[in-house]
Amino acid sequence: MNFCSNCGSRVVLKVPDGDFLPRHVCPNCGAIHYLNPKLVVGSVPEYQGRILICKRGIEPRHGYWTIPAGFMENDETLEAGAAREAMEEARIQVEIGSLLLLANVTSARQVHVFFRSRMLTADFDVTHESLEVKLIDAREIPWDDLAFPSTEYALRRYVEDRAAGVERHHVAEMQRRF
Amino acid sequence: MNFCSNCGSRVVLKVPDGDFLPRHVCPNCGAIHYLNPKLVVGSVPEYQGRILICKRGIEPRHGYWTIPAGFMENDETLEAGAAREAMEEARIQVEIGSLLLLANVTSARQVHVFFRSRMLTADFDVTHESLEVKLIDAREIPWDDLAFPSTEYALRRYVEDRAAGVERHHVAEMQRRF
Repeated sequence: MNFCSNCGSRVVLKVPDGDFLPRHVCPNCGAIHYLNPKLVVGSVPEYQGRILICKRGIEPRHGYWTIPAGFMENDETLEAGAAREAMEEARIQVEIGSLLLLANVTSARQVHVFFRSRMLTADFDVTHESLEVKLIDAREIPWDDLAFPSTEYALRRYVEDRAAGVERHHVAEMQRRF
Repeated sequence: MNFCSNCGSRVVLKVPDGDFLPRHVCPNCGAIHYLNPKLVVGSVPEYQGRILICKRGIEPRHGYWTIPAGFMENDETLEAGAAREAMEEARIQVEIGSLLLLANVTSARQVHVFFRSRMLTADFDVTHESLEVKLIDAREIPWDDLAFPSTEYALRRYVEDRAAGVERHHVAEMQRRF
């Protein structure tokens, strides 16, 4: 951050009164610009026991497999965001279910919130964000070609919990992998 | 947002290629400035069966009671942020426990993540953010003078769950109240 998004002046880095961290502060209009972690929302969609995964058609991790997920937008709930991403990345209609994973992805300054979801129909399709979309059995999950640590963590817990007949939630910290 | 924080040019509002929402885009350097919900992290601290609450010394809701919570910073986990807020607002050392509440606060463009926490000692104190800090019994919670809908929701679920002998998590949407 170099300039004030409010008035266009050059910002300076300093600790505001009563604060404890340096912030980008505008010496002209006084605006303090905070930088905070971003939320990524998504789900593990299931249809009649099979799991839907998408091959990423965009960077980062182009060509690797993931579950439908992306940045949460303003003015939507976590669940609405997760359902929107399912539509955007796989053209599926889902009903969002229980909380699966709350993942600290500190190195990327993100928090990932993943739910279980149920596809309302068997329909799915590729989109400009996904090269390929498919419904697979749990034993077909491409563990070595998953896009992100949180993708793998979510799918492992999903499969374990389903085998145990429970819908647990998990809070975890993802280690940097790339 | 009026100016590009990268190069200082005036931004325009438009839908970038492949996107579906208008964004603040810089016609000079091409930067796209996304606005996303912010995370608020906190906890319900307990010490030997009593609950710690703080009277807010800052706006919004100056003079109303709350649990220690605030904006999550970059480079910290949800749990570290919740523990930091406990220290900043009440000078308490806590061990963060189970997830209590994941609250959509859509009207404020926030997501609140609250945990249960355990105070490691009986020590607490006021800070520049809190006019008063106290340890109370559950029946002394000032329900009519709580700061935010998520404060009330978290405390109600906390008390109910404790009475039931369980540590559930809750996912909910807060209605605008003010």
